[in-house]
Amino acid sequence: MQMLDLDGITITHNLKSKKITATKIIEQTLTEVEQQNSILNCFTAILKESALNQAQIIDSTIDKGNNPGILAGVPFAVKNLFDIEGITTLAGSKINAENPPAIQDSITIRKLKQAGAILVGALNMDEYAYGFVTENTHYGATPNPHDLTRISGGSSGGSAAAVAANLVPFTLGSDTNGSIRVPAALCGVLGLKPTYGRVSRSGAFLFSSSLDHIGFFARSVRDIAAIFDVLQGQDINDPVCTSLPPQPCFPVLQNGIDGLKIAIAGDYFQEGAEVEVLEAVEMVAKLLNTQTIINIPETHRARAAAYIITACEGSNLHLERLRSRSQDFDPATRDRFLAGALIPGSWYVQAQRFRRWYQDQVMSIFQEVDVIIAPTTPCIATLLGQEKMIINGKEILIRPNLGRFTQPLSFIGLPVLSFPILRDNKLPLGVQLIAAPYEEAKILQVATFLEKSFCGTRILPVRK
Amino acid sequence: MQMLDLDGITITHNLKSKKITATKIIEQTLTEVEQQNSILNCFTAILKESALNQAQIIDSTIDKGNNPGILAGVPFAVKNLFDIEGITTLAGSKINAENPPAIQDSITIRKLKQAGAILVGALNMDEYAYGFVTENTHYGATPNPHDLTRISGGSSGGSAAAVAANLVPFTLGSDTNGSIRVPAALCGVLGLKPTYGRVSRSGAFLFSSSLDHIGFFARSVRDIAAIFDVLQGQDINDPVCTSLPPQPCFPVLQNGIDGLKIAIAGDYFQEGAEVEVLEAVEMVAKLLNTQTIINIPETHRARAAAYIITACEGSNLHLERLRSRSQDFDPATRDRFLAGALIPGSWYVQAQRFRRWYQDQVMSIFQEVDVIIAPTTPCIATLLGQEKMIINGKEILIRPNLGRFTQPLSFIGLPVLSFPILRDNKLPLGVQLIAAPYEEAKILQVATFLEKSFCGTRILPVRK
Repeated sequence: MQMLDLDGITITHNLKSKKITATKIIEQTLTEVEQQNSILNCFTAILKESALNQAQIIDSTIDKGNNPGILAGVPFAVKNLFDIEGITTLAGSKINAENPPAIQDSITIRKLKQAGAILVGALNMDEYAYGFVTENTHYGATPNPHDLTRISGGSSGGSAAAVAANLVPFTLGSDTNGSIRVPAALCGVLGLKPTYGRVSRSGAFLFSSSLDHIGFFARSVRDIAAIFDVLQGQDINDPVCTSLPPQPCFPVLQNGIDGLKIAIAGDYFQEGAEVEVLEAVEMVAKLLNTQTIINIPETHRARAAAYIITACEGSNLHLERLRSRSQDFDPATRDRFLAGALIPGSWYVQAQRFRRWYQDQVMSIFQEVDVIIAPTTPCIATLLGQEKMIINGKEILIRPNLGRFTQPLSFIGLPVLSFPILRDNKLPLGVQLIAAPYEEAKILQVATFLEKSFCGTRILPVRK
Repeated sequence: MQMLDLDGITITHNLKSKKITATKIIEQTLTEVEQQNSILNCFTAILKESALNQAQIIDSTIDKGNNPGILAGVPFAVKNLFDIEGITTLAGSKINAENPPAIQDSITIRKLKQAGAILVGALNMDEYAYGFVTENTHYGATPNPHDLTRISGGSSGGSAAAVAANLVPFTLGSDTNGSIRVPAALCGVLGLKPTYGRVSRSGAFLFSSSLDHIGFFARSVRDIAAIFDVLQGQDINDPVCTSLPPQPCFPVLQNGIDGLKIAIAGDYFQEGAEVEVLEAVEMVAKLLNTQTIINIPETHRARAAAYIITACEGSNLHLERLRSRSQDFDPATRDRFLAGALIPGSWYVQAQRFRRWYQDQVMSIFQEVDVIIAPTTPCIATLLGQEKMIINGKEILIRPNLGRFTQPLSFIGLPVLSFPILRDNKLPLGVQLIAAPYEEAKILQVATFLEKSFCGTRILPVRK
């Protein structure tokens, strides 16, 4: 399926130059999804009819000579916590399956459809987004397309795997403590978590409000930039959503990195990881010609504080369900939520106070530096069902430690892209490109440079 | 002491026109404070030497023909939670008395001194600002200057009483749930709590950060406006402090209320109060020629949420002291703080979520209305030591119920002035003038109109 290996911008280009029709694209996509999904278990819903309808509308728009949008004809799918008109928003849970169908699409889906992208389905995830493995007890695990015995990572595991397996060029996910970046790294795709509040969360089933971000996965940097431009901007239905006007990134994507000050995160970010992970960061640093190391103080406390805030806010959201239906939760999330409900308010207040302090420390570092690089995960994808791993001779639990490097950054709302490191005969890894709030353009500038350095291998099919 | 009956603006005027010297003003003030304080117990520190020094500097500035400032020569005092260089910041506690002296004045004191005002002392309060009565176990009660058998209200009781007794024309206080407005009403003086974040809290010993406001007491609206202008504005040392430029109120004080839409708070705000309280609101409504009633939904929940947030944030602030020295707390605050430390984080999160909802409701009301009037307290000052009162035939506790009408408003950071209602042979009451955030000017416009309607009785001495 050569068409499915392309990125979104190329697909739209082919469509506009009449090399292919939207209907053809969607037919091919649906065939592939239906064939692969029995093995990959990415999709929890396939929207055959509505996708074909939308494709027909795009085709007729083109026939009439009208502009079908910047992402016209590009198939996409969304983590199943986004509202899709007419189907029930599962958020990975059994309990929510009893809810009525959503009455309208999430704002993000609506914006993408307006830009011509075509929604083909909903994707698997950890229950209520509380996990890093996408081994969902109710809906099954989503294995890694690079190695079916391993995890895709989570909680947006279905979203990362669908892009890695070339089923769709891009997908939506959400990131609270690393739920976009972790699976992006383990599946070897790009995953952007924009600045907190830069993309509206309206119509998404949230988890921990002060940490929840919407983001997306793709196989080319220009796709990431184009999707970001479509989605960024104010929404009165999300109270934390920015009031700043959108700043388009796609039209101004730069080639070079001249003038950018890039540094490597030291200390905490160089400990607790496999050697190959640190080597990947080193390789990227070399390509970016930097040896500067910056240290963010008290990062282990940032991670602890993020845990407390996540558990308190998450348990508050689910309190009634925990009281009345705890037996219907996934065993993997139930205990975490119940424990969260017992955390004293004073701890939560302390965590929020520390958060402001930590943010000040990091912001002062961004006075000197434009982009910071750090590992995304401490290791490659672990085995399905595996509970522990050994790092630096120390046995640790996998589930709470996959977010070691992602959690302290979402904690203070920084924009971060996990850039994939694809290696011959080895499983993929990710390197985080981190900037100050609202500086996504700088991240995309560095990513464009890296993409060219790696000769665009990311958009090659990873599985046949 | 005729001079002491004047408001601050008149004192500065007399000083600038050389009717009196700053030294003379301060000598008179100190004599009066020293005489009265054995009965009134407002002051916990009297700053004789530094006040006389500052007076001398003001006098010499005037002698040289230079401008001594908008509040030149005006004596003032502050709740003892503001840092005063060289003395220990008590915050009403025994524990803090062991702390070293503050190394500099609070930002608010520094600004007032720069405007020529002269600091003469620190004032009594409930321990750690957690109370509505100023019956402090460590430092004694501050009786009401209108009736020494009754309370001044709290927690800024010393600040209200000092102004009511004409010891100083103005004082600083703080308001978390009503700690400026309650004593202002019970003592019959003006008490302004500006918009949350509009006056820096730097150098003040805080209580509950998301609710704490700095404010002040005075006997004329123009004094309130002038003090507000001196204090408002950004301060990098208070992270919640506004970044908006100051908008001066004093130079633009208006006489009429033409064009202002004024409404009476109904429902919750017309229940749970003595008849004379509701009559005072009615009288003010008549003067303002309004019969419009607006209802703010779920206000009882706003009060509950404010309690939870106060208790969680307050207990977090004092957690170490509660662990190691609970026996040294005032019995009136100890149990509240200890209980606060046990509140689940999920409740705190829920209270914060409700807060945003409630704020949206109130903001939509301010689309239609400029100023809302409501009672300040449910009753006149109660007796010292009294624990319960009967309202509408129902016996209720006094301490938690004095803030019934103030607490839901500070909860969402609205600017509120308690306007005093002084009546012959009756104890004073207060009516709250409430506006949307950053609309202090509208409140002062209404207050100026009311002040003129009442013939300026507020600046008459209330006690000889």
